[in-house]
Order: sequence, then C-alpha cells, then structure tokens
Amino acid sequence: MSEVNINEDLVKERKKCTFDVEELIHLVDGGKHNTLERKKVEQYVLSIKELKDDVPEEYLSHKERYENSVRKGSILFMVLMKGILERKRNKDEGISYNYKIINGVVKDVTPFMLHFGMFLPTLASQASPEQQREWLKKGSQMIGTYAQTELGHGTFLRGLETTATYDADTEEFIIHSPNLTSYKWWPGGLAQTVNHCIVMAQLYIKGKNHGIHPFLVQIRDIETHMPLPGIKVGDIGPKLGFQTANNGFLGFDNYRIPRMNMLMKNSQVLKDGTYVKAKNDKLTYGTMVFVRVTIVADVAYELARAATIAVRYAAVRHQSKPKPNEPEPQILDYLTQQHKLFIAVSTSHAFRIVGRWLWSTYTKPEPQILDYVTQQHKLFIAVSTSHAFRIVGRWLWSTYTKVVADIRHGNMDHLPELHALACCLKAVCSKDASVCVEQCRFACGGHGYMQSSNLPIIYGIVTATVTYEGEHTVMLLQTARYLVKAYKQASEGKSLTPTVAYMAKYLKNGSHCWQNTPEGIIGGFQAVAAGKTKEACESLFRHAHARAVLCEMFWKEIQRISSTVSPSLAIVLEQLAELYLKYWALEKRGDMLMYSNITKEDISSLQRRYVELLALIRPNAVGIVDAFDIRDEILCSTLGAYDGRVYERLMEEAMKSPLNKEPVNQSFHKYIKPLLIQAKL
Amino acid sequence: MSEVNINEDLVKERKKCTFDVEELIHLVDGGKHNTLERKKVEQYVLSIKELKDDVPEEYLSHKERYENSVRKGSILFMVLMKGILERKRNKDEGISYNYKIINGVVKDVTPFMLHFGMFLPTLASQASPEQQREWLKKGSQMIGTYAQTELGHGTFLRGLETTATYDADTEEFIIHSPNLTSYKWWPGGLAQTVNHCIVMAQLYIKGKNHGIHPFLVQIRDIETHMPLPGIKVGDIGPKLGFQTANNGFLGFDNYRIPRMNMLMKNSQVLKDGTYVKAKNDKLTYGTMVFVRVTIVADVAYELARAATIAVRYAAVRHQSKPKPNEPEPQILDYLTQQHKLFIAVSTSHAFRIVGRWLWSTYTKPEPQILDYVTQQHKLFIAVSTSHAFRIVGRWLWSTYTKVVADIRHGNMDHLPELHALACCLKAVCSKDASVCVEQCRFACGGHGYMQSSNLPIIYGIVTATVTYEGEHTVMLLQTARYLVKAYKQASEGKSLTPTVAYMAKYLKNGSHCWQNTPEGIIGGFQAVAAGKTKEACESLFRHAHARAVLCEMFWKEIQRISSTVSPSLAIVLEQLAELYLKYWALEKRGDMLMYSNITKEDISSLQRRYVELLALIRPNAVGIVDAFDIRDEILCSTLGAYDGRVYERLMEEAMKSPLNKEPVNQSFHKYIKPLLIQAKL
Repeated sequence: MSEVNINEDLVKERKKCTFDVEELIHLVDGGKHNTLERKKVEQYVLSIKELKDDVPEEYLSHKERYENSVRKGSILFMVLMKGILERKRNKDEGISYNYKIINGVVKDVTPFMLHFGMFLPTLASQASPEQQREWLKKGSQMIGTYAQTELGHGTFLRGLETTATYDADTEEFIIHSPNLTSYKWWPGGLAQTVNHCIVMAQLYIKGKNHGIHPFLVQIRDIETHMPLPGIKVGDIGPKLGFQTANNGFLGFDNYRIPRMNMLMKNSQVLKDGTYVKAKNDKLTYGTMVFVRVTIVADVAYELARAATIAVRYAAVRHQSKPKPNEPEPQILDYLTQQHKLFIAVSTSHAFRIVGRWLWSTYTKPEPQILDYVTQQHKLFIAVSTSHAFRIVGRWLWSTYTKVVADIRHGNMDHLPELHALACCLKAVCSKDASVCVEQCRFACGGHGYMQSSNLPIIYGIVTATVTYEGEHTVMLLQTARYLVKAYKQASEGKSLTPTVAYMAKYLKNGSHCWQNTPEGIIGGFQAVAAGKTKEACESLFRHAHARAVLCEMFWKEIQRISSTVSPSLAIVLEQLAELYLKYWALEKRGDMLMYSNITKEDISSLQRRYVELLALIRPNAVGIVDAFDIRDEILCSTLGAYDGRVYERLMEEAMKSPLNKEPVNQSFHKYIKPLLIQAKL
Repeated sequence: MSEVNINEDLVKERKKCTFDVEELIHLVDGGKHNTLERKKVEQYVLSIKELKDDVPEEYLSHKERYENSVRKGSILFMVLMKGILERKRNKDEGISYNYKIINGVVKDVTPFMLHFGMFLPTLASQASPEQQREWLKKGSQMIGTYAQTELGHGTFLRGLETTATYDADTEEFIIHSPNLTSYKWWPGGLAQTVNHCIVMAQLYIKGKNHGIHPFLVQIRDIETHMPLPGIKVGDIGPKLGFQTANNGFLGFDNYRIPRMNMLMKNSQVLKDGTYVKAKNDKLTYGTMVFVRVTIVADVAYELARAATIAVRYAAVRHQSKPKPNEPEPQILDYLTQQHKLFIAVSTSHAFRIVGRWLWSTYTKPEPQILDYVTQQHKLFIAVSTSHAFRIVGRWLWSTYTKVVADIRHGNMDHLPELHALACCLKAVCSKDASVCVEQCRFACGGHGYMQSSNLPIIYGIVTATVTYEGEHTVMLLQTARYLVKAYKQASEGKSLTPTVAYMAKYLKNGSHCWQNTPEGIIGGFQAVAAGKTKEACESLFRHAHARAVLCEMFWKEIQRISSTVSPSLAIVLEQLAELYLKYWALEKRGDMLMYSNITKEDISSLQRRYVELLALIRPNAVGIVDAFDIRDEILCSTLGAYDGRVYERLMEEAMKSPLNKEPVNQSFHKYIKPLLIQAKL
C-alpha cells in the first residue's frame, strides 16, 4: 500500500519496528505459501463488485438486512461451490480462514453459515457411507442447517423434547414437537433460508427411549420453498448480534420421514425396529466437539480484528498534555514507571530500545494514547491472547484430528480427555476473548461505541460463543467432573493422561515451589487447579486447569517456534508469551498466594517485569497488529484501517446515514412543530 | 395482579418469601407516599395508547426508528411540560425516576433526553439570573442539547478545539470549528431534533485564551427547522445502543452569536472585552459533576431491571436432572455445598429456613436453574449491587446538594472531595453495573442474547456510562491524584476530609488487623487503598478507594435503615449487604493478602459464609426482585415479566417479525432458486 495517505503517526510506528512484519505474517498464516494463497483468495472475493453495499447494513430494517444478506450470501455460496474457498478445511487449522473473509464481506454472518459450518460436516461425520453417497452427491438441492437447541433446553441435551418415534409398519419416523418448549429455536438459516435440516430428537422405538439421535428432515418444498405440511417454521427476531444469520424456530406436527433419514453411521434402526447401539454415545455429539475445537481458533481471529482496530487507533489518537505546573496523575504514572523501567532494564539487552522510545515519548508534546501504561495494559493482553489462542487452537486441532483418526480405528481411549479439553478451552477462550474485545472497545473511548468502529459487531459475534455449543458454566462443570475423576485416579496411584498428569505431582508434593519464570507460573496454575480440585469447591472460582493448559501450550509452542524464526522475531514472540503468563499470574495472584508459596516480593517483581514488558512491546505494537494482516475490507472499521484516517472515515461513514440526505426530517413538521406551538400557548 | 396466569414456579417462590415485599418496595422508593405517587404517574403515562408500538422498534430501519422515537418522545415532552413528571427533581434522588418511565416507554432513550437532562440543568446552573429569566420563560421555543465532546477530544476538556472569539466591535462571539477534529460529536438530539445547544468552546479575547466556557447557540430556524447559515449538523450513525438518541455532529463556520449568549453566572465577558474570572474554574464543569453523581443511582436502576429479568427467568427455567447413576458435577456442587451448609448453619438462626428450602430443592425432580450455586453466584451480587448503588447514590446526592449549597454561600472547601468522590464512584459503579448486566445476560443463556429479553438493550445503555461524562480510566487517574495529595497531607500531619481520613490510620499503623466482619472487610479495602497509594503504582490495578467507600457507606446505611424496618426485612437487607462485602473481599483476596494480615483460613471462612449467604438469600430471591417493583411495560422483557410466561412471550414477540408475515420471502426467488438451478448443472 502506498504510504502517501497514511497517518504520520502510523508511518513513524511502522519505521520503529524491530522485527520483520512479513515474517510474522507468514508465521500467523502457517507458512509463506498459505499467505500467498490467502491473499489470492481475498483478492478474488473482495473484487466482486456485487458484494459491496451502497448503504451500510446497520441502516436497514430487519427484513431488508435479511434480504441483503441472502443476496450477498448467495454470491459467496456460489464461490464456495466452485471450491475456491474450501482448500484449507481439515488441514492445519480446522475451520478455514476463508469463512473469515465471508464474515468480513457481510460484516456479520450469512444465513448459509450453518450449511457449510454444521450441516455438511454432520452429514460427513454421522451419515453412513451409503447415505453420504446419496446426500453429498453433485447437484444436491439441499441447503441445510443443524437443529438441536429448543426453547426449553439448550446445553443439557438429555432435556430435549422433540421426539422421533419409529413406525415399523410404514418404516418411517414420526418427528413431533409435543409442546411449545420443544420447538427448535436458534439454528442459523432456519427461519426463511434452508430447505433441509439435521434434527436432533429423542428416538423412541416400541415405547422405549434410546436418547438423542440425528435425523435429516426436509422442511420446505424444493421448487416453491413453501413450508411442508406439518412444519411450522419462522424467524425468532432480532438479537444482540448475528443480525443477518436468519436464526429460526421449528415445530413438527407428527411429521413423517423415511427410516433411512436417520443418520446411521453410529447407531442404527433396522427395518423391524431393532436398535443397534453406537460403540460410544459421545460420538453422536461429534459435531459439537468439532465446533468447540474450532471456536478456540475462531475467537483468536476475531480478537486479532479487535486488537488491530484498538492498537492502531491508540497510535493515532492523541490526548492533551497535562498542565506544566500540575502533578497530573499521567505524569505520576509515567515518571514512576520510567524510574522503575530505567533501573530494571539498565543492565538488560532491552535498555537501548526502551530508553530511546521513552525519551522520544517524554519529549513529545501531545502523547499518543498508546503511550499510556494503562492503555498498554488493556491492549497488549488482547494481542497476546490472540496469539495464544491461535497457537493453542492449532495444537487442539491436531489433537482432535489424532483422536478422530484413532476412533476410526476403533480406539476411543483419548475421547474423554479430548472432550474435557474441548469443554474447558471453549469455555475459557470464549469468555476471555469476549472480555478482551470489550476491553479493546472501551480502550477506544466513545468512538468504540460507534457501529462503524465494528467493535460492537465483533463483540456480538464473540460474546455469542460464550453461550452457544455449550454454555460457559456447564462446560466448566463438565471439566470439573473430569478433573475430580483424574484426581481420584491419581490418588489411587493410576497413571493419568498428559494434560492432567500434573495432578499426581501436587498430590505427592502438596505445594508448589514458586519461581518467577514461565515454568514457575505454569506450575503455579497447575498447583491452583490441583488444589481446587482437591477441595472440590471450585465451582465458583474455577478456570485454573484451562489456564494451566493455555499457559503451558502457548509457552512450549513459542519456545519451539522461536528456534525456527529470526532472532528479532523470536524476541517479540517470547515477549508476547511472557506477557500472557505474567498478566494471568498477576490477575490470579490471590489464587497463587493461596495454593503456592509465592511471596509478596515475588508479586512485586512480577509487576515490575510486567510493566517492563509493556514498554518492550510498545515500539512494536503497530507492527505486531499489522502482522495479523487483516485487509480493511475485512476489518470493516473506521478506527482500525491501515491508513489511520480515523476522523475522516468516521465522518464519511456518518454521511451515509439516510437521515443526512435531507436537511429537515418529516418528523419536524409532524411532531416537533406542534410541540413548539403548544409551548407558546 | 391476578395470579391466574402466573407461572406456578413463581407463585411458589412468592409464597416462600420471609419478608413483606410491599415494605421493601416502599423502602426502595424512599417511602410509601413516593410509591403511591410513582404508581399514579406510571399508570397515567403507560395508559397513553399512542405510546404503544405495533411493530417492535428493533425491526425498523435506522430512519424509521428515529421518526418513531420523535413521535413518542413528543408525547412525553408534552407530558413533561405539563409538569406531571417533574416533581421529584432535586429532592432525594437527584435524577427523577420519571426518566426511567421514559426509558421504559421508548425502550431506549428519546431524542429529547438531553433537553431535560443537560440543556435545562446547565441553563439553570450556569446562566446568570437575568439570562435564566430570559431563556427559561414560559413559551420558550428552545429545544436544546449540550455539545461538549468533539471528534478529536472527549474527556480531556483542555484539548477541545472549538473556539469562541470575542469581537468587541460588534459585541459578538465568533464560534468556529478550525478543523475536522474540532467538530462536536455525540450530543443526543443534536442531529435532527434540537434547534439550540449549549456549546463548550475555548474563549479567546484579544488573542488570549481563557479556557473552556459555555455558550447558548441557535443552530436551526425555529419556523422551518433548516440549519442556519454557518452551521453543519447531522446524524453520526448507528451505535451499540442509544439507537433512538439521535446523536449528532456539529461544525461552525465563523458563526456569530451575541455577547449575552455566553452563560455568565460564573465567568463574564464585559462589553469592552474585559474578562471576569469565575471564583473556581471547576464550576464551569458543574453539569458534568451533576451528571456523574446521578449516574450512580441511574445504573442502580438499570441493574435492578437486569436483575429482575435474570432472577425471574432463573426461577422459571429448569435444567434437566443429572442421570441417577452418574456423579454429575451438579450433584457434586450440590452435595458438597449442602454438606457445608448444614454444618455451618446448624447452630444458627438460619437453620430452619435454609434447611426447609434445601430439602424442597433436593426432593424436586428438575431443579430450577436458580437452585444452582453457580447461578446464585452470578445473580445475587447483581441484586445486592443494585441496592448498594441506590443507597450510596442517595448518600452521594445528599453530599452533592450540601456542597452546592455551600458553594452558593461562597464556601468551596468540599468541592475537591466531591469531585474526587464523583469521579471514582462514577467510574467504579458504571463498570461494575456493566459487568453485572452482562453477567445477568449470560445467566439467561441463549435467550439472554435475544433483543426481546431486553438485556442487550439495557447493556447498551449501561455500558455507555463507562465512557461518557468522563472516561473510566481517566476518572480513576483523577481519583489517584486526589489520593496521592491526601496521602501527602496525612504524612505531613494535616487533617483529612472524611472519605479519606483512613489514610492517616494506615500511615500510622502500617497494616490492617484482619477480622472476618463487615468492619474488618471495609478496613481491609481501606488498607489496600492506602497501601497502593503509598506505593503510587496503583495505575493498573486500582479501585480500592471507591470499593472502600461503597462498602462502608452501604454497610453503614443498611445498619441505620435496619433499625427502622421490620425484623424480617432487616435480616434480608443485612444479608444483601453482607453478601456484597464478602463477594468483593473474595474477589480481591489477592489484594487483601498483599495489604492486610488476612490468612488463608480467614479466606476459607469467608468462602463458607459467602455460600451460606447465597443459600439464605435463595428463598427470598424472587420476592427481592419483585420489590424493585418494575412494571412489565418498563421491564420490556420476554424473560422477566411478572407472570413468568417466558416461552409464550418469546414466541409471541418472534411472531411480530415482518419476516413471519409471509411464508416465502422474495429473496428465495431472486437469489436462492438460481443457486439451486446452478447446483443442478
């Protein structure tokens, strides 16, 4: 991009970088080849003229937004059918980054998201080979979604009330919604868009309940799109986010489908009604585990979007200088920190870099808000967390593919561990990302509240992940159950699976010998997790196991990666990982004080090092978010564009408001004028 | 209300209450008389047929929403002009609860909010008596707003760039926007609604800058509503919330106003250009202090709305029962807690109540989600916080009115303390409320994400308070400055103002002798605040002073109130206050371990008591939120209505979607059908 129209602060920031941004871009993409391919795909999709909106979606009515998202979604659907965007699925990241392009293009999600994200994957994993041949063939007229959650029950699947009763006489299942609370509620695309869906229902054969099973159900006529008799389907209305997802409800009135429409890869129902049970009933929920695994990397990406916006804005935004003769707290912040920093770093490698930056900052008239330690505290953890989740997400994905391959060979040994890992990482990563995105939004002050900053929309997407595919608290309770089992096994001297192996150590040693090192912090979180499990009172203040896994895997992977990249990039990566560990050790210092032998002096030293890390990362901050390499069209933000023309973009976007197309709105004559006349009387 | 159509769980919950709900309603309102009057006003306003919408606002386009909100806002404006809603201003609560009715009626805010909330109050406090006679007279044709924040600068007022240059020849001020960043940005109603505004601008006389001053500026023609020459005004576009506030931008091109349009109560500019300085330049920002003070009680009210919704929903929602033969974590939670509880309370007054409730819960087939300790942990702190903020907000209001009265008599001694108090309480209360509302939303699972739950809209209103009228972090930095000064005074042996008097104690004693009592916890927070101030490194992890004030005032006031109410209500109030203190002591146990001599055993004991309090509050939970006495029309929630008909209401609201008015949307024919044809080929 030409630097002609780039905000001068950003130009300076980019010159200051101590590492090669291109190198980090390739690392984030998983290799230079991937970067080139991604850019090609982006270029192709983003140059489709029909995907551009005249009026931003936020100005449209609910109905208009739907219609516009189907319009744009159909174009993307066609692109997807051509296979252009499908390349990376099931390779190193699980969910293709290409969906991210889609999110960018439509700002939110398309009504077809679940067709590609859950409907097709469920057919691929739960349908028998013959069924797959039948249903996934070329020319399929199915557009589908995945219908599990009901009005009355979500995460607790056993509570679902929709029934599928086998009628051996006609060799059919009767799908039925016995009451209002059994109506399906939430599936994306269900309302007006899809003609098929996977329905999760309680299977009944001869009066006996066999639990939840998946069924392929046609709900609308292929030709006319009319709902079929016995089907009640519609829109559930506006939500906090996902405005264009077309989430729907669905009820059945004794609706009949052929026997072979039950997905029969795992369990089967034979013609005569004989039930053949799956080897492991967890397999039925395979799609959910798959989606939970992908959420970790997905939120990492959304967080990268939010952090890019907030860091660039913080580099462009200036705060007025404190009055010269007044001891303003900013100066206080500043000098105290500087004092500490100069002492702390004077003997270290970092002195040169930090000193130069601090001096330039100190002599500058109006500081950029990114120079405030409080701002760095809010933003750098978001940047670091995005890297942590991407890296741990990749590790989780490779674990997932291994376990799935094992299952294919009949080995289910690692399924419980995968299930527990997916539960707790999904829970903690979705919540952390949600908090970090809001923190990025708050860090942008009032302008972060503008839809045109895109931060409210990103929050809408991310905060939904806290609840969907397994409610946060329930996920943590399920993890707790696994941990209690592991603890029991450890106390009986049995061997433990790798991610909980630390339990045995703390059972033996009793306490953790604190060290202010990454390994010491990881050990600290393991001690906290083991200690809380022992007390079995972790229900209210739990997170420690997931935090131990995140810290350990992030740190290990960064150590491994660092040896493969240039020294200047390795330093940056290690700073980010160390920041992540120090941040959480400080956030959870109460737990550390309770469950390890950390001292108050250790904590003070952690704090000093943490502030030092903020200063070390500061000069590279813009470069680091540039390396997320998210195009402006995908960032969709007035505050975060590459060129930093924040105020011009805010005004340009505002001018698109239909209210600004006329000097006086009709409501003046209809309502305000009569008011003024009344006032006169 | 008839109990005929009430959800049976709620009927049972209400029967269980151990206190008189009416009595608490009167307490919340500040007396029975107030309750009766409030109900009368509500009845009057809510029976105006024209205020009811056919189609919920969320389905409309941005422009339609504006027009609808002017329509409804005008009706309310008329009601306000008749004085029906104005009664309580400046009495015991500051901001009239009547605005809350307005929020209820329009769901969000009206474009006239700042006319009543800031424009008129600023004229009343900043205009000279002669100006007030002129501008506030009957028949005024002014509809106004308050324009301070600019595109480039918000909270740091000295950075504002709009200029008001005095021209002694014509006795006029020239209001000018020197560049894009100086455009006013954000004022509610500014875009299309108001014809006047208070403009905060840098005053220049003969080349000398005298700082920020307020000016009354007409921006639109009274008769035609056309923007006047030299004025650029318009809509800033959609935001996270405040969708109907009609926030606007405003630029001036050397726009002239008469000298007497400067608000001259504090500073004056004489005809010849002589500048007469105000006694205290903080007086210019009086409106901001006023609004900050009112925010504490405002967010208490919004939190009451959120808590009412979430607690009632939690009583209605059922979670499926764990499988009988499996050690589900819910059972773990449950039995561990029960075990603890029975031991803990066996000797206490509470045994009877808790035991009865636990037993009834234990023998019930499908627990209500309100029976889960994790759910209680999320919700009861929200309830308790609403009470804390309302009570502390009233105390803050009475402090404010005293200081304002002092100022009127020329005594400014208490202004710095008021300013610091307003800063830190505004910062902490807005952020806590924002977190609690989101927690209430998360506690409602997926349905909390529906707009029809009203929780996303309440969050939009509350989260804005974190930023507006003084950005969160900047407010805390200003408090820190005050605390550092106080600490210095204390170390010099000078006397301190009441809210920081504890500094002297900890300066002398060095540490805090921990006790697991309310006083011990309050002392703990004071020790943390003093300790952090001493270290002057509190910039990243500060809140302790505000928390000490909140805990102390809430506890003291509850002690005082308890002696005036019936014993059964006093128990409930003290439980809520104790919960608040214990919750925060546990949340901040890391700080307590650092700055007081609390032990691990103290913390365990706090935890036990905290869980005990959850169980003690549980049977009264619905009654307590009923006592917020918020009418369904003001709650605007499918999940929180008095009757608990959650699922029916969700479906009824969904059916209002324009997308559900036709079986097939036109986009099928336009976009989806061509897709299917393409797939066939």
